[in-house]
Amino acid sequence: MNTESLKKLLRSVATGKISVEDAARMLMHISFEDIDYAHIDHNRSLRKGFPEVIFGQGKTPDQIVGIMEKMTVQENVVLITRIDQQISEKVVPRFPGAVYHKDAKMVVWKKNKISKQGKGTILVLSAGTSDIPVAKEAYLTAKAMGNDVESVFDVGIAGIHRLFDHKKMIDRASVLIVVAGMEGALPSVVAGMVSRPVIAVPTSIGYGVSLGGLTALFAMLNSCSSNIAVVNIDNGFGAGYMASIINRL
Amino acid sequence: MNTESLKKLLRSVATGKISVEDAARMLMHISFEDIDYAHIDHNRSLRKGFPEVIFGQGKTPDQIVGIMEKMTVQENVVLITRIDQQISEKVVPRFPGAVYHKDAKMVVWKKNKISKQGKGTILVLSAGTSDIPVAKEAYLTAKAMGNDVESVFDVGIAGIHRLFDHKKMIDRASVLIVVAGMEGALPSVVAGMVSRPVIAVPTSIGYGVSLGGLTALFAMLNSCSSNIAVVNIDNGFGAGYMASIINRL
Amino acid sequence: MNTESLKKLLRSVATGKISVEDAARMLMHISFEDIDYAHIDHNRSLRKGFPEVIFGQGKTPDQIVGIMEKMTVQENVVLITRIDQQISEKVVPRFPGAVYHKDAKMVVWKKNKISKQGKGTILVLSAGTSDIPVAKEAYLTAKAMGNDVESVFDVGIAGIHRLFDHKKMIDRASVLIVVAGMEGALPSVVAGMVSRPVIAVPTSIGYGVSLGGLTALFAMLNSCSSNIAVVNIDNGFGAGYMASIINRL
Amino acid sequence: MNTESLKKLLRSVATGKISVEDAARMLMHISFEDIDYAHIDHNRSLRKGFPEVIFGQGKTPDQIVGIMEKMTVQENVVLITRIDQQISEKVVPRFPGAVYHKDAKMVVWKKNKISKQGKGTILVLSAGTSDIPVAKEAYLTAKAMGNDVESVFDVGIAGIHRLFDHKKMIDRASVLIVVAGMEGALPSVVAGMVSRPVIAVPTSIGYGVSLGGLTALFAMLNSCSSNIAVVNIDNGFGAGYMASIINRL
Amino acid sequence: MNTESLKKLLRSVATGKISVEDAARMLMHISFEDIDYAHIDHNRSLRKGFPEVIFGQGKTPDQIVGIMEKMTVQENVVLITRIDQQISEKVVPRFPGAVYHKDAKMVVWKKNKISKQGKGTILVLSAGTSDIPVAKEAYLTAKAMGNDVESVFDVGIAGIHRLFDHKKMIDRASVLIVVAGMEGALPSVVAGMVSRPVIAVPTSIGYGVSLGGLTALFAMLNSCSSNIAVVNIDNGFGAGYMASIINRL
Amino acid sequence: MNTESLKKLLRSVATGKISVEDAARMLMHISFEDIDYAHIDHNRSLRKGFPEVIFGQGKTPDQIVGIMEKMTVQENVVLITRIDQQISEKVVPRFPGAVYHKDAKMVVWKKNKISKQGKGTILVLSAGTSDIPVAKEAYLTAKAMGNDVESVFDVGIAGIHRLFDHKKMIDRASVLIVVAGMEGALPSVVAGMVSRPVIAVPTSIGYGVSLGGLTALFAMLNSCSSNIAVVNIDNGFGAGYMASIINRL
Amino acid sequence: MNTESLKKLLRSVATGKISVEDAARMLMHISFEDIDYAHIDHNRSLRKGFPEVIFGQGKTPDQIVGIMEKMTVQENVVLITRIDQQISEKVVPRFPGAVYHKDAKMVVWKKNKISKQGKGTILVLSAGTSDIPVAKEAYLTAKAMGNDVESVFDVGIAGIHRLFDHKKMIDRASVLIVVAGMEGALPSVVAGMVSRPVIAVPTSIGYGVSLGGLTALFAMLNSCSSNIAVVNIDNGFGAGYMASIINRL
Amino acid sequence: MNTESLKKLLRSVATGKISVEDAARMLMHISFEDIDYAHIDHNRSLRKGFPEVIFGQGKTPDQIVGIMEKMTVQENVVLITRIDQQISEKVVPRFPGAVYHKDAKMVVWKKNKISKQGKGTILVLSAGTSDIPVAKEAYLTAKAMGNDVESVFDVGIAGIHRLFDHKKMIDRASVLIVVAGMEGALPSVVAGMVSRPVIAVPTSIGYGVSLGGLTALFAMLNSCSSNIAVVNIDNGFGAGYMASIINRL
Repeated sequence: MNTESLKKLLRSVATGKISVEDAARMLMHISFEDIDYAHIDHNRSLRKGFPEVIFGQGKTPDQIVGIMEKMTVQENVVLITRIDQQISEKVVPRFPGAVYHKDAKMVVWKKNKISKQGKGTILVLSAGTSDIPVAKEAYLTAKAMGNDVESVFDVGIAGIHRLFDHKKMIDRASVLIVVAGMEGALPSVVAGMVSRPVIAVPTSIGYGVSLGGLTALFAMLNSCSSNIAVVNIDNGFGAGYMASIINRL
Repeated sequence: MNTESLKKLLRSVATGKISVEDAARMLMHISFEDIDYAHIDHNRSLRKGFPEVIFGQGKTPDQIVGIMEKMTVQENVVLITRIDQQISEKVVPRFPGAVYHKDAKMVVWKKNKISKQGKGTILVLSAGTSDIPVAKEAYLTAKAMGNDVESVFDVGIAGIHRLFDHKKMIDRASVLIVVAGMEGALPSVVAGMVSRPVIAVPTSIGYGVSLGGLTALFAMLNSCSSNIAVVNIDNGFGAGYMASIINRL
Repeated sequence: MNTESLKKLLRSVATGKISVEDAARMLMHISFEDIDYAHIDHNRSLRKGFPEVIFGQGKTPDQIVGIMEKMTVQENVVLITRIDQQISEKVVPRFPGAVYHKDAKMVVWKKNKISKQGKGTILVLSAGTSDIPVAKEAYLTAKAMGNDVESVFDVGIAGIHRLFDHKKMIDRASVLIVVAGMEGALPSVVAGMVSRPVIAVPTSIGYGVSLGGLTALFAMLNSCSSNIAVVNIDNGFGAGYMASIINRL
Repeated sequence: MNTESLKKLLRSVATGKISVEDAARMLMHISFEDIDYAHIDHNRSLRKGFPEVIFGQGKTPDQIVGIMEKMTVQENVVLITRIDQQISEKVVPRFPGAVYHKDAKMVVWKKNKISKQGKGTILVLSAGTSDIPVAKEAYLTAKAMGNDVESVFDVGIAGIHRLFDHKKMIDRASVLIVVAGMEGALPSVVAGMVSRPVIAVPTSIGYGVSLGGLTALFAMLNSCSSNIAVVNIDNGFGAGYMASIINRL
Repeated sequence: MNTESLKKLLRSVATGKISVEDAARMLMHISFEDIDYAHIDHNRSLRKGFPEVIFGQGKTPDQIVGIMEKMTVQENVVLITRIDQQISEKVVPRFPGAVYHKDAKMVVWKKNKISKQGKGTILVLSAGTSDIPVAKEAYLTAKAMGNDVESVFDVGIAGIHRLFDHKKMIDRASVLIVVAGMEGALPSVVAGMVSRPVIAVPTSIGYGVSLGGLTALFAMLNSCSSNIAVVNIDNGFGAGYMASIINRL
Repeated sequence: MNTESLKKLLRSVATGKISVEDAARMLMHISFEDIDYAHIDHNRSLRKGFPEVIFGQGKTPDQIVGIMEKMTVQENVVLITRIDQQISEKVVPRFPGAVYHKDAKMVVWKKNKISKQGKGTILVLSAGTSDIPVAKEAYLTAKAMGNDVESVFDVGIAGIHRLFDHKKMIDRASVLIVVAGMEGALPSVVAGMVSRPVIAVPTSIGYGVSLGGLTALFAMLNSCSSNIAVVNIDNGFGAGYMASIINRL
Repeated sequence: MNTESLKKLLRSVATGKISVEDAARMLMHISFEDIDYAHIDHNRSLRKGFPEVIFGQGKTPDQIVGIMEKMTVQENVVLITRIDQQISEKVVPRFPGAVYHKDAKMVVWKKNKISKQGKGTILVLSAGTSDIPVAKEAYLTAKAMGNDVESVFDVGIAGIHRLFDHKKMIDRASVLIVVAGMEGALPSVVAGMVSRPVIAVPTSIGYGVSLGGLTALFAMLNSCSSNIAVVNIDNGFGAGYMASIINRL
Repeated sequence: MNTESLKKLLRSVATGKISVEDAARMLMHISFEDIDYAHIDHNRSLRKGFPEVIFGQGKTPDQIVGIMEKMTVQENVVLITRIDQQISEKVVPRFPGAVYHKDAKMVVWKKNKISKQGKGTILVLSAGTSDIPVAKEAYLTAKAMGNDVESVFDVGIAGIHRLFDHKKMIDRASVLIVVAGMEGALPSVVAGMVSRPVIAVPTSIGYGVSLGGLTALFAMLNSCSSNIAVVNIDNGFGAGYMASIINRL
């Protein structure tokens, strides 16, 4: 809301076209529910096109259930990320429609079928077998946000022909999510092959100077390809979200 | 090219539908020019939708001129990034249509008018006055790649109302590039306001524990907003390029 | 004690105005009790306005009980920080008036009611649900040091209107403690809204390049707001202490 | 402005008590001037009790003069920090009342005498001769913000009696700013002596593993004293500002 | 395959000398098996002289067994590295000829006797008793790749005569693998004694500023001897592999 | 042994003054026992004045017993450092005269009474209660190497008068070992009080930016006192050893 | 020399078979020249197969000339690395046969033609134009050590077909040196294509999180290919040396 | 001064045995001169056995002259460290007896001949020619503090026989200072040869992962020899000082 629209609204109030109550609601653009340990942001679906996502790590089962109870009233789909199986077992039975995905450590809850919102196809590639959990988190997020998603796993650069054999699938993707640990070179190679945006996801897979994923992260940020942007280490969710937002353009 | 399409092509050669010469050209997908100190990748415009960009830093004027001479024959627009004024003065006069942008340390050379390729508007925001050079690099890159681009500078979070006053412009952008040094918090705040993709660019502006931009970079990667992806420190060019690629979807 | 006051005191001893015993006590300003594994600093209440605080981490139950036994004789309030529930269960039953706070991992022991010493109100804000334990440590410390304390949790910058809705409470606070992990941007935004001192507390909440809280810490130190100073990662106690000291001015 | 006050204001508009124009102005709480390369935040004096400060580093003389021209109209005191002598010589002559302080690399411009706003005395201590420039920046900032300020330089802990000789001055200070490089131990020792808040400022003085001030910074954050909070490396200005804000309580 | 050979092949197809099927196979140089969670690179033995090695860490027993089942059909020797005893017990019984080496956490599976492929002798030296597991991994890898291998353990530089006593064995080696943690100085000393290539392996053995092996790694990379190259921390396998490749020249 | 002495010895052999056997022994200065997983350096007592010390961490009980069996034959005192209680229980009963010190995680084995070898007194100071285990390791090592040792624990700089009260003991020490974690300032303060050498030992005690002891280490290396040298983090043994060596001068 | 051979030699001395003078020479294996600021190691050619190399950085022209004067008497080839043009101009004219290579900042001095010592061909590949200086240092070193050397520059992975076009040259190399900055991925890709040893050289080319070459270094050490070992950042000389030593096997 | 001695002194004052003036002087143990930018610690010679040393870096010529004027009155020897030749030329002519040492960037001023205070000989060893400046700083400091000092330069471990040839000199030293950059291994090797204390000095010599001396520093702290303690990077002065203090025992 800027000066112009503000004056316009106020004129409507002054002339009685809009009631004080209504104007207040419109001006507030504040809409959340305070349940002591959390401020649930109900406005987010409207403002950002997807409801708030519950970051499971460090929350108790009670806290997660409490938040879910408020959200499932208002939303069609709710995601819980980074939730251990043990905790999921205390949460999932309470909400019919909720499914736990062990690989990705994620709960996806749906009220109704998710309508398609993305235009093209999102492709998730992973460099190694060990990167699959992060790739799956990206995959599930993009699915839950209404996209067509494809995936190919274990196509690292040490045997680069494995990658080239999937060129057709790579070429038809609108947005690519490329997941890699260790030296993190796969996104550069893939981005060099396509004209589409690549979201690079470093993983913490490796040992020694993989430095918990920092090496892969820095390598991706230094890519000599330019159609790349990067998310945090192991942040499959963020990559799936960003790719979905791009795919809606 | 995968197994299916390869066999198909070979059958066409076997039956004489396609000549050996033509098939070779089609199969090669290799097309570069070797001028000793550089392999110029003429295939890039076709493959990636934009010609190779000359990274000026660490190249001699002779090397830059040599590469330009080959590229200007084949391309409509050529960019040189990170080029000092002193070196630009030995390069620009040789190529009519080349302009040096001092702020952004960039040369933009055009043969003909750049046709519009981006669908929506790209908005470049910067947190401080000192971040402007990086923001300008993003701006010029997005312009050269055929986009409508807008910009607002010095709207850091210490006086957050300055940002909110530009909400209309922020809301209508298709893709946002947000440039910030120091604590690098601006992209998070902006991304929380919109449903569009945000490309975050950390800058090396700051002192002490800004650590040459690492703090801003890490803060952006840790953003609690999810419609964000990040490029390397001071990489305005990369942000402009990525935003353009997204804007073409 | 400087040269002047020293001579004055000595003259009083020389003339018999002050006895040798009294002068010794006055000069010593040394007053501690040595129980082998600890030198308990009884002088601290007098010198610093609050008794020594027991840092529970790495101490055995016996050591903690030993120190408590000496301190509860002389003090009105004793705090134990960073004490696991398991250890607290061996300590708390021994000292009537001691309460264990599970969230904050803290024991607060009181002899009598704590008298009010702070002038204004201290407000504790936290960015996320996971930051609550650190925020609670700050809250309990400030309470134990005789302040009026208020708190609001989970008002991070991804939905910044949640913060603005609490503007009244924010405006009336004398000192603000702002707790945040991940990108650590909340203190900057809050400090930009008020004219009061803000104590920023980075937390180790996050993953990947949150680097155990270093990113939040560095972001806070690089804040473009100036009414901010920072304490160690997860140091809710220190923030509560510093805010209390400021609130006594 | 929260829900209550918003409704009240809107009722006044509805009943004609407040004109649309006036209400708009009141609601905007947006007040800045956009001069292309900067958004000058005129609201800051009102909101934060001190006008925006010009961070000189990385700005051209023209940019600084341009900002000064706008600010000197509305403010009584303007500070420019981190400004080299060479640049100051192009700025200072344009603004009568402006003085360049070489040690602190700071310009202080005053329209009228600064009225006293701080209650007690602020004391600036520095550990070594080489830390004086940072200490001076803190000193000048606190002075410009209307405080009584005292200072003692070169009282490092290798000869700790030098510090103890100034105990009287230390004891009477309301807020202490302690500046130290190398091992950064002075703030801990000083904070152990007093019951007042200590703002610790690490400096980049040192070599080898002083790591440009990181060692001093980390040492201060790890202080075993609790009445300490820390600002960025070499941030004398920030320390002076924070101490002034505290001293106004 | 370059332009010349491509045209030649195509001419053979055009003239019927080579069938479409055969040409396709020749052109593909792509040969892998996709079992969902892995793309097994059967071409590797041909291309690189040794089959793919299974990196056990982070794989489930089922995944390892699945990959083994495919590989043991086609290969004569298969290695699994970084496999815990617990997991090995679910894998080894399924494949006669497989042996688990507890020290090195490695499974070696052989169909037939491994034929000798290395020319000279590879010598594995380790600085301390605690470095033996990494040294053993190098030893077993070099053995499995068909080399004569010798080893001497615990000959660190604090008692350098222990090393000199083995000079004869050191002098006769073709390639040396030198394993060391802590200050990582042994490879430098050994490389100074011989004219042969030394592969240096830093280990994560140590505490404090051994930094998980980074100090040893950096020391080795800074060696004042020049016949040294380095592999990742604890990467005994990589050292054994690289030494074997060199020993085949 | 240099050229001169070598020739002299050889002349003695040539003239029969020294037998071939004797000369060999004299020339070898090589004397160790190879028990596969260790080269025991029996020459060390002679060469360095104290037998090899067994670094327990990462060794199996069998390995430790094996080394002990060889060493106890030849030595009067043997130390095992960093040995867990669980492992000590499998080792200690096998060697009468061996005692396990739980605090310091150390086994001291003695054949006969240790004769005094140090001239003055070594004083061990620790900053906090949590630093005691490291301080105890230093204490026991210096004792085992034949020194008079005194200790004072928990005299950190937050209450610096606790330190000054022990000034007499501090003044009479020949060599001082000062152990501190967190900000690591105690060695600087102590070294400023005395003219004797101070061995500073950083500990990993602390949290947040104590960085596992790196902050204390770097602070000590940056000390503004000059009679200080530093050992690795938590290396109480090394400090006790170095102090003993100095005390023998 | 071990116990057996020592006794044998001594017996020969005792029986007069070998003179005292001869035995001394044999035993010494010590042969250097002390010119105050340097101990020139004349034994190195014999022991290591190539004379000592002069590290130019940080040496004065006089020191370099002094060392050259001693070495040119005894050696056939002498290399000076990291020598600035300015300093080379004071050194080169003094030694006929010395040539300065500006790109590589290297002086190569030859007495007679260098005889061929390497068996196969060494291939030097570089990822970018800016990496050429480091690649040239490797090239010149390998040449000076008697190898056939080939090179291809600017074949980075963003346009990977440029690399594949040189496959024939890559396949016929005995040893490969692969030089890359930024994300440092080229060595992994190349090593995946060949069965020969690859020496990877990270360069300091890049900006932001290239971290002066650390990112490229770490990426190379984390390579998912196994026929790779790595040298220090920008250490073209070391790579050329190591490759030459391998090529002599 | 502790409680006992304090009471005793006070009793003497009470009974008139000691005058008020005398007692004050005795109690103060404070003796410095405040010249605004420095507190000169005249008490240091008495307390620590050597006068304060002027750290030249970052001080103006005027400041250095000012401090020298005060110190030369009271002391027999004054050292200025880290002083550039340019600045030394403004200082040295003012003080007869002052000599500038260009290598070590040090000024040594003497009133009278320095009397011998050290018992044995201090030996300074350096690994490379480039380490000589740091070694010289140690040498000059130890000389100025009244010791017999010897030195050997350029005896790095790549040709370890150069070191062994100086064994006699090494064996007779009371204290050894070992200076090394790059991998920093020399102190470990030397310490393994002797029973005397070794002060290790890392230097910033090297490139790439020498990390400005951090690698050498960490390697030295991780030494597998125990008669080693370490000083800051390039801190030749500190090593000379510490060795001198040890040599006085």
